[in-house]
Amino acid sequence: MPWTPTPEDDRRFMDLALAQARKSWDEGGVPIGAVLVHDGEVLAAGHNQRFQKDSAILHGETDTIEKAGRLPASVYRSSVLYTTLSPCIMCAGTALLYEIPRIVVGENRTFEMSEALLAERGVQVDVLDDPACLALMERMLAERPALWSEDIGVEAGETAKAAR
Amino acid sequence: MPWTPTPEDDRRFMDLALAQARKSWDEGGVPIGAVLVHDGEVLAAGHNQRFQKDSAILHGETDTIEKAGRLPASVYRSSVLYTTLSPCIMCAGTALLYEIPRIVVGENRTFEMSEALLAERGVQVDVLDDPACLALMERMLAERPALWSEDIGVEAGETAKAAR
Repeated sequence: MPWTPTPEDDRRFMDLALAQARKSWDEGGVPIGAVLVHDGEVLAAGHNQRFQKDSAILHGETDTIEKAGRLPASVYRSSVLYTTLSPCIMCAGTALLYEIPRIVVGENRTFEMSEALLAERGVQVDVLDDPACLALMERMLAERPALWSEDIGVEAGETAKAAR
Repeated sequence: MPWTPTPEDDRRFMDLALAQARKSWDEGGVPIGAVLVHDGEVLAAGHNQRFQKDSAILHGETDTIEKAGRLPASVYRSSVLYTTLSPCIMCAGTALLYEIPRIVVGENRTFEMSEALLAERGVQVDVLDDPACLALMERMLAERPALWSEDIGVEAGETAKAAR
């Protein structure tokens, strides 16, 4: 029988993603973390690496998928991706390429760009609306706004794409 | 006046992307290359790194964007991305995140996954239908089919997503 995470499992894996986000914040970076889980086992945990590695493509989700290494299609197709923030379209596209069927999102109040696209293409997106994920992103927006703008491809002071 | 590439410019930059694809093939990898060009200047050139770096996220386009480093939004928004093969949805999503306005594609006969999404969102996609890009991918499909299936997130023997 395929593994089905309980709400307690979701909470536990989101806490791991949140720990990654906090680590990234403490390092001076963007506080977004993720974990990829298959059959109840954590395949990889990662976080945004824009600041740490001067990376334009290592968001929380893509860093995690990169860390998970080369996997057969069947593994992605029965995995769950946990991420502290609603995925941007690069990360959504990555999940769609590998047909990850479910994404659990910490919060989508500070940023939301691709949930409609994911839903349209059959991905189950569950938003926990977690106060700790939200508080961390609110701190990011207040204290490192230029880094955040850069991370979502907008100029400093521009409104995020989602709100346009 | 903003720079507008001529057909000769497009040919020249596609040849650079093709050189990257050939390099990747010679290394035992997936023969897809790309270059990012701004104001007539090559910001970065890259290629698929699945085989070389055991990477699940470094496709030709994302490797190139990664190599270009951290750029202001305004630079992406006036750049052209050249890629030897039509982008998968991860790479299309990356271009959409950074609002790259134009993508020049070597060929889309062996794979096409996201041109409709790109067009829908205002990206200009120009397909050169280049015989050299096509020949390289046909060799890939014939000689390294398992690596190719893995790269596009399907099991060996499954039809590519585009054709489903």
